[in-house]
Amino acid sequence: MKVREFLQERDWEKFHNSKDLAEGICVEAAELLQLFQWMSPDEVHRFQNDPAKVKQLKEELADVFIYCLSMANAMNIDLASSVMRKLESNRKKYPAELYRGKARL
Amino acid sequence: MKVREFLQERDWEKFHNSKDLAEGICVEAAELLQLFQWMSPDEVHRFQNDPAKVKQLKEELADVFIYCLSMANAMNIDLASSVMRKLESNRKKYPAELYRGKARL
Amino acid sequence: MKVREFLQERDWEKFHNSKDLAEGICVEAAELLQLFQWMSPDEVHRFQNDPAKVKQLKEELADVFIYCLSMANAMNIDLASSVMRKLESNRKKYPAELYRGKARL
Amino acid sequence: MKVREFLQERDWEKFHNSKDLAEGICVEAAELLQLFQWMSPDEVHRFQNDPAKVKQLKEELADVFIYCLSMANAMNIDLASSVMRKLESNRKKYPAELYRGKARL
Repeated sequence: MKVREFLQERDWEKFHNSKDLAEGICVEAAELLQLFQWMSPDEVHRFQNDPAKVKQLKEELADVFIYCLSMANAMNIDLASSVMRKLESNRKKYPAELYRGKARL
Repeated sequence: MKVREFLQERDWEKFHNSKDLAEGICVEAAELLQLFQWMSPDEVHRFQNDPAKVKQLKEELADVFIYCLSMANAMNIDLASSVMRKLESNRKKYPAELYRGKARL
Repeated sequence: MKVREFLQERDWEKFHNSKDLAEGICVEAAELLQLFQWMSPDEVHRFQNDPAKVKQLKEELADVFIYCLSMANAMNIDLASSVMRKLESNRKKYPAELYRGKARL
Repeated sequence: MKVREFLQERDWEKFHNSKDLAEGICVEAAELLQLFQWMSPDEVHRFQNDPAKVKQLKEELADVFIYCLSMANAMNIDLASSVMRKLESNRKKYPAELYRGKARL
């Protein structure tokens, strides 16, 4: 995994305890959210069509993602299979035939 | 992508504007962080070796991840290449030979 | 201060290091935000006029507030004067005659 | 209230719907948390005794607080009495004689 390689080259894995990584995910998630603060739905719509803004969004989303991957790396979690398992349990919790167009994730 | 398929089966993509998804990422990130609240480094260490706790952690991390993938889906972002680009820019910002063992992501 | 009294009666001040309190503020802030997730502006408006929802909001807001007061207590910060100083600096940063009706906090 | 006066001078109350204020509280809470990221308990202890750092902390905490007061203002919430009510309910939930020195807020 490229994230692991990046961390190992810098000998940064030793800093990566799960509590501080969880804080990092929170901090980066808030920076992502900040991009949208005070925006009306119309402004959000325009934002989504503005390449400069989408570029910023991509970077902030990548930051959250990299911390998630670092957490998975630190904890030896196979994130892909956790996601599959969670989707499977959501599938049972929200059957498509009952929730189609009605509910929200 | 499995997340897209899950959303489409429920016709939930229409709810997925980027602002609310960013809120979702924040909310799930905080639930992940809450697992560690008040824990000393020793307790974090024990936590990381307790299978029941790690199971909870996997689920909360999967929730953050699913929202990130939903955001990427809603915005047509290729998350893998955003992550690669961000790591590339971090590689320049934090050269391995200067930051080895010294700095933190 | 009533929060200090509450903490001292339980001998809880010893747990209150500033890092964990900052985590607590984050976690409670996200619970407050969760009340609004997926709401359109119309739904937010209805929410604000629904006494049962406002009761929930009051409780979540009080939780954030209590953690802020606990942090101020732990760090011997006079919060009222910090707020006054910050408002004073915002007053200079955003002069009323330039920002009236135009900008956002 | 000084926060209300500040907002009214700028005609900013109209921007203050409760959803965006909740986002603001989250974003500011994460900036506060970021001050502590990667810190060991020893580093947190040193942080708490470093006047320059404490000054930063005061400012970030004031930001969270001002958003809480703005939310209370926008929703006509008497924050002091919400806090008193919440502490009262916490008093019953965590009786001092049972939780002294044992539990955490």
